[in-house]
Amino acid sequence: MAKFMDEDFLLSTKTAKWLYHDVAEKLPIIDYHCHINPQEIAVDRKFDSITQVWLGGDHYKWRAMRAAGITEDKITGSADDREKFRAFATTMPQLIGNPLYHWSHLELQRVFGITEPLTPGNADAIYDKANELLKDYSARKLMDKFQVKAICTTDDPIDGLHWHQRIADDPTMTAKVLPAFRPDKAVNIEKPGFAAYIKLLSEAVGRALNTAEDVAAALVERINYFHDRGCLCADHGLDYCMFAPPDRKTADEAFQLAMRGENPSKAQADAYKTLVTIACAKRYAELDWVMQIHFGCLRDNNKPQFALLGPDTGYDAVNSQSGVENLAPLLNAFTENGGLPKMILYSLNPMDNTAIATIMACFQGGGTAGKLQQGSAWWFNDNRPGMRAQLTDLAANSVLGRFVGMLTDSRSFLSYTRHEYFRRVLCELIGEWVESGQYPDDRGALTKLAENLCFHNTNEFFRFGVRMD
Amino acid sequence: MAKFMDEDFLLSTKTAKWLYHDVAEKLPIIDYHCHINPQEIAVDRKFDSITQVWLGGDHYKWRAMRAAGITEDKITGSADDREKFRAFATTMPQLIGNPLYHWSHLELQRVFGITEPLTPGNADAIYDKANELLKDYSARKLMDKFQVKAICTTDDPIDGLHWHQRIADDPTMTAKVLPAFRPDKAVNIEKPGFAAYIKLLSEAVGRALNTAEDVAAALVERINYFHDRGCLCADHGLDYCMFAPPDRKTADEAFQLAMRGENPSKAQADAYKTLVTIACAKRYAELDWVMQIHFGCLRDNNKPQFALLGPDTGYDAVNSQSGVENLAPLLNAFTENGGLPKMILYSLNPMDNTAIATIMACFQGGGTAGKLQQGSAWWFNDNRPGMRAQLTDLAANSVLGRFVGMLTDSRSFLSYTRHEYFRRVLCELIGEWVESGQYPDDRGALTKLAENLCFHNTNEFFRFGVRMD
Amino acid sequence: MAKFMDEDFLLSTKTAKWLYHDVAEKLPIIDYHCHINPQEIAVDRKFDSITQVWLGGDHYKWRAMRAAGITEDKITGSADDREKFRAFATTMPQLIGNPLYHWSHLELQRVFGITEPLTPGNADAIYDKANELLKDYSARKLMDKFQVKAICTTDDPIDGLHWHQRIADDPTMTAKVLPAFRPDKAVNIEKPGFAAYIKLLSEAVGRALNTAEDVAAALVERINYFHDRGCLCADHGLDYCMFAPPDRKTADEAFQLAMRGENPSKAQADAYKTLVTIACAKRYAELDWVMQIHFGCLRDNNKPQFALLGPDTGYDAVNSQSGVENLAPLLNAFTENGGLPKMILYSLNPMDNTAIATIMACFQGGGTAGKLQQGSAWWFNDNRPGMRAQLTDLAANSVLGRFVGMLTDSRSFLSYTRHEYFRRVLCELIGEWVESGQYPDDRGALTKLAENLCFHNTNEFFRFGVRMD
Repeated sequence: MAKFMDEDFLLSTKTAKWLYHDVAEKLPIIDYHCHINPQEIAVDRKFDSITQVWLGGDHYKWRAMRAAGITEDKITGSADDREKFRAFATTMPQLIGNPLYHWSHLELQRVFGITEPLTPGNADAIYDKANELLKDYSARKLMDKFQVKAICTTDDPIDGLHWHQRIADDPTMTAKVLPAFRPDKAVNIEKPGFAAYIKLLSEAVGRALNTAEDVAAALVERINYFHDRGCLCADHGLDYCMFAPPDRKTADEAFQLAMRGENPSKAQADAYKTLVTIACAKRYAELDWVMQIHFGCLRDNNKPQFALLGPDTGYDAVNSQSGVENLAPLLNAFTENGGLPKMILYSLNPMDNTAIATIMACFQGGGTAGKLQQGSAWWFNDNRPGMRAQLTDLAANSVLGRFVGMLTDSRSFLSYTRHEYFRRVLCELIGEWVESGQYPDDRGALTKLAENLCFHNTNEFFRFGVRMD
Repeated sequence: MAKFMDEDFLLSTKTAKWLYHDVAEKLPIIDYHCHINPQEIAVDRKFDSITQVWLGGDHYKWRAMRAAGITEDKITGSADDREKFRAFATTMPQLIGNPLYHWSHLELQRVFGITEPLTPGNADAIYDKANELLKDYSARKLMDKFQVKAICTTDDPIDGLHWHQRIADDPTMTAKVLPAFRPDKAVNIEKPGFAAYIKLLSEAVGRALNTAEDVAAALVERINYFHDRGCLCADHGLDYCMFAPPDRKTADEAFQLAMRGENPSKAQADAYKTLVTIACAKRYAELDWVMQIHFGCLRDNNKPQFALLGPDTGYDAVNSQSGVENLAPLLNAFTENGGLPKMILYSLNPMDNTAIATIMACFQGGGTAGKLQQGSAWWFNDNRPGMRAQLTDLAANSVLGRFVGMLTDSRSFLSYTRHEYFRRVLCELIGEWVESGQYPDDRGALTKLAENLCFHNTNEFFRFGVRMD
Repeated sequence: MAKFMDEDFLLSTKTAKWLYHDVAEKLPIIDYHCHINPQEIAVDRKFDSITQVWLGGDHYKWRAMRAAGITEDKITGSADDREKFRAFATTMPQLIGNPLYHWSHLELQRVFGITEPLTPGNADAIYDKANELLKDYSARKLMDKFQVKAICTTDDPIDGLHWHQRIADDPTMTAKVLPAFRPDKAVNIEKPGFAAYIKLLSEAVGRALNTAEDVAAALVERINYFHDRGCLCADHGLDYCMFAPPDRKTADEAFQLAMRGENPSKAQADAYKTLVTIACAKRYAELDWVMQIHFGCLRDNNKPQFALLGPDTGYDAVNSQSGVENLAPLLNAFTENGGLPKMILYSLNPMDNTAIATIMACFQGGGTAGKLQQGSAWWFNDNRPGMRAQLTDLAANSVLGRFVGMLTDSRSFLSYTRHEYFRRVLCELIGEWVESGQYPDDRGALTKLAENLCFHNTNEFFRFGVRMD
C-alpha cells in the first residue's frame, strides 16, 4: 500500500518515479494563464491567515462547504477566520475523490511542511501553525519558492496596466509577469453591462464607437497597447462557442439594439460576436500572439445567490450546449480571413474532448508545430480523472509531444502546487504506457518528452524567452 | 487469479476486502426507490418458479434474449417456464461484461446457494433446485433475508394506498413499506391518455379541473393525502428535462388543447409541465420530502412491438437530447418560487454526469448537507463501469461523503443483491484510492464513510427513522 | 516491465496471453469493410517504396505530421519519398499515446521484421531495408501473409464491378473479394455534385429519374446488380443521422430543388434522404444483406485546404451534432415498412456509444442472433481506449458474444495488422474480466467466445461462407 500523499504520490511505476523525480520535479514553472491580481505582486502582498488564502476567494471550496451543510456565514459570511477554517476542516474528510483533497494537502505539505491529513481534530493546531509560517511568506517569496519564472495574468482591454508597469520597472523582480488580453465584455453582447462597457472602451480609445467594426478597431488598438507592454496572449471566454456569418449589417443591428438596452436575437448576437472575434484573431496572428478560447460554461445559475454574492462565487456549471460544433466554422473563418493565430482551445464540457481534438487537427499545418492546442483539463475537469481523459484523448488524436501542458487558472499564490499535481499525473500515465510496452523504455526520449511537456513547449509556444539555468 | 464471483468478488485490495466484509456487508438495506407491488408484500406472495421471478417482468433479460436470437415465444410468449429458463441459460454465457451476468449469479448464490455458473448444460438441474428452494420463500421472507428495513414503492397520485394501509396495520410486518408519489400522468401532457387521466384525478379530488393551476392544486391535495400515510418522497419521470417560463396563460392553452385531444406545441407543453412541477416541488419542500427527477429516456421506440406488448417491455433507450441544460433554470425556478426541496437527480444519459454534478452544486446551501444529490447509476448505467463513472464524477464535483447511495429500481424481491453489488463496487473504488495513497488509511474515517454511504445518509436524508440494532 | 511491443504486447494477464496466442492469433481474417481499390488486387500491384504505402494516401499520418510542424511539401507535396519518410520518422517519437505509433510499428514488425522503434536516427536504414523487402511483396502476397480469407471493398452504385469480375474469374485468387454497395452520392442531396451524379445514375439504369421514388427504384435495380455479383452488404455514410417523415411530396420537392441546383431546406432534404434510405433498407432485408450506417462526421472543415487537396485529405472531425436520437425513428421506419435488415451502426462521436447500444437493443428480435450490431470503434476512435470503451459499453448493454468485431476501413494492404491490434485489446479485456473473477475461467467457453468474436460471427452474419481449414 502506498503511503498517503508521500513523495511518490500518484507515481505508480518505477518509470513514473524516475521521470518525475529526476526530470519533471526539478523544472521551473511557467503559469501562462492565471487570475492573480498584479497589484499583489507589485506591492508584494503578505497574508494574515490561511483562511484568507484558502477561503477568501476560492469558490471551489465554497461549493464543497455548501454541499457539506456548512451555513453561508462560515463560507462567505461574517464568521471569523478561525471558525471558517474549522468549517472547512469538517468538510475535508468527506472530500474523498475530490481534487480539493489533494490540492489542499499538497499546499499544506509544500508551503507549510504539514504532512498530516487535515481533520476537525487537528484543525486548530494546523490553523495556528500555518498562520505562523505565513508571516514569513509574501507573494514574491511564494513565487520564488515554486520556481515560477513567468506568469500571465488576466486583464481587461481598458486596463492601463499600471501595476504591470510597476512590476516591469522593479529591478528586484525576477519572474516575468505579463498581462493577457481578455476582451469578453466587448464581445459578449448579450450580457448585462455591455452598453456601459462599450462607453468605457470608447473613452479608452478616445472616440465614439458606432458600429461593430468600430468596436473591433478599438480592440485592435488596445491589443497594440498591450503588445507594446509585453503581452503575448489573449483569452476569450464564451458561454458557448458561437458562429454566424460575420455579416456587417447584422452585426451592426445587434450592436445598435444592445446599445439601446434591447436584446438582439441569438443570430444577430452571434454575427456581432463572430465579426469582432475574427478581427481580434487576425491581429493576434499578425503579432504572433497565442489566442485562448474558453467555452462551455453555464454561469450564474442560482439567481437569488447571484443577487447576493455576484459572479464567480460558486454558481457556475458545465454547459451541455457548448456549441463545440461551431468551432469548425469559426476556425475556418479565422483561416479564410487570413488570421488564424496559434490557439489553445478549452471546453468546460469534458464530453467535447474528442470533438475539439479532431476539429483542431483540421487546422494544423503551415510548419508551426502544435499550432492548435487543446487546453489542459479545465476547472471542473482539473482533477486526476479529468487530466487523464484530456491527455488520453489528446494523445490519441493529436501529437502529445507538442502539448503546452499545465496552467493554474487560479487567484492564489499557493496554487502552483497544481503544476506538481499535473506533472505527477503526466508521469504516472507515461509510466503506464512505458511499463506496459506501449512506448519504448528510452530514457533519453522520455526525458526530452517530459521536459517539453512541463516547460519547453510552453516557453517556445508563447515566446516567453525564459532561459534554463 | 481471483475465483469467479467468490466472497471477495470485485474486492481487489486488502482495504476493499476489509471495508466490505467488516463494514458494508453487515449493514441493513434501505431501498428508497423500487417498483415492488405493495400487494405482494401485503399478501406475502409466494413464487411458483424462478422463471416467474426472473423472466416474468424483467425487460433487461428480455432484451438480452432477443439480441441472442431467442424467439419471442420463449421470452414473453407462450412457451412454458422450463423452456424459457433454458432459453435464458443459453443466453447467459454470451453475456460477458453485462451486469445481468453478475446480478443473476449473485441471486443464484445468495438466495439459492448455487455457486456454479449457469450454462445450458446445468440449466435443468438449477431450474429444479431453485424452484424447490423457492417454496420456502415469500416476499417478506426475502426481505428479511436481505435485512431490508425500509422501502419506497412507486404509486400513482390517485391510488388510495389501500395495500400500504394493510401493511401498516399488520403488526407482524417489521420493515417499513412506504409509498412514493409519482405524478407523471398528470405532468406529461404530450402523452396519450393524458385527458383520460385528468378526469380520474378530477374524480379523486372531487372537483372539476379546468386549468393548469387546478391540476397543480389537485396534485398538492394528493401529496397531502400521501403525506398523511407516511410518504416521504416523490419521483418525477421525464423523457427530457424541460424548462419554459411557467406562464399561466400559456400553460392553460396547453391544457385546453390536450383536454380536447389536440397537441400543444412543445413550448406550450413545457410551460404547463414547468408550472405543475414547480407547484409540486414547493409542496415537497414545505413537507421536507425528497423529490427525485429521472430524465433522459427515449421510450417505446419499436412501435410494432409496443403495439403488441405495451410499455416497459424492453423498447426504451438513452435519450441523447436529455435537456440536462434545462436543469439549471428549473432548479432556479424552484428556488425563486420559495420551494427547492431536497432532491435526487438522475439522467439516463451517462454523458450528463458532469453537467448534473456541476449544476446541482449551484443550488447546494442553506445548511442542509447534501441537499441535492446525483442519483446512483440508473438503468442502463447500473453496472460496474457505470457506477464507477457516477461515483468518480460525483466525488470530483461534489461531496461524496454525503451521497445517499444505492436503490434497486426493481420489481423483484431478488434484486436486493444489487445493493451488495453497489457496496462491492464502492469498496473496490475506495480501496483503490486508499491503497494508491490518494486518501488516508484511517480505518475509523473509512468505517464512518462506508456506513454513511451504505445506510446512514439515506436514513437521515429521507427521515426513515430506521434504528440500527 | 513489459518489453516494447513484443509478442505479448497488450496481453497483461496469463489468460490474455493464452487466449491470444492459442486462439485469436491463429484465426484467419475477414475484413468486411475496407477501401482497398479492387484493381490493385486484380493486377496484383507491387509497391516501389514504403512511403507510397504509408504516406501515399494515409490522412491519419498527414494530420499527425501537420501537427508536428512538418511543412506540406513533405506531406502531400513534391518532396521525394525518402524526405517524406524522414519527416514522418521525426514525428514518430512524439506520438506517444497515438494509435499510429502502434499501427506503424506493428506493420514494421509483421511485414518487414523490423522490431526497433522508428526514430530520426534509424530512418534511412529502415527506409532502405523496408523498400528492399517490399520488392518481394504484392497485394495478393500481403493478403496471403495475413491469412485474409474475405474482404468487402467500397463501391459506387454505378460501378460496373469489372475489376471485381476479373478477380472472380481468376482461378489463382484464393480470398473472396466482394463489393459493398455505397449509395451516398444518391442520398446526400445537400452535397455539391448531387445533380450531376443523379444523371450518371440515370444513365446506368437507362431511364430518366424524375422523383425521389425514381431514385429509390434505380438504387434497388443497382442493388440487384450488385447482388448478382456476390455482394452481401451496403454502407451508408451520413454526416448526421437524419429522420423526417418520408413524405413523398416533400421528398420530391427536395429532389426538384436539388436537380435545379438550389438548396432544399433541411426538413425537405431529410424527407428525401429518409425515403430513399428506407427503400434501400427494405431491399437489403429482402436479400438478407447487412446494412451498415456510418454517421457523425463533420467533413472538409478547412475550406482553403479542401480547395487545394480535395476530400479525404485530413480535414474531417467528429460531429457533436450526430443526430443519434434520430436513429430510433429511422430504425422504426425500417421496421414499419417491413424492411429492417441486419445492421451495423457506427457513430464517429464516442459519446454516442451508450445511446446506440440502447437504441439498437429496441429492434433486436425475431430470432436472428445479433441482428443489430454496434460497429467496432471507428476512425478517430480506432485505438486502445476507444476500442475498450466500445467493447465495454456494448457488453454492458447488449450481448457481446454476438459481436461481429473488427474491420480495417483502410486503403492499405498493411493495415491487416489492425485485426491483430483489435484481437490483443479484446483478449486483454477478457483476461481482465476473467482474472478479476467477473467471468468464469472456463477455457472451452473462452475459446468459443474468442473464435466467434474474431471470425465466426462475421462469417455467419454476412454469410461469407469461408470454411476453416
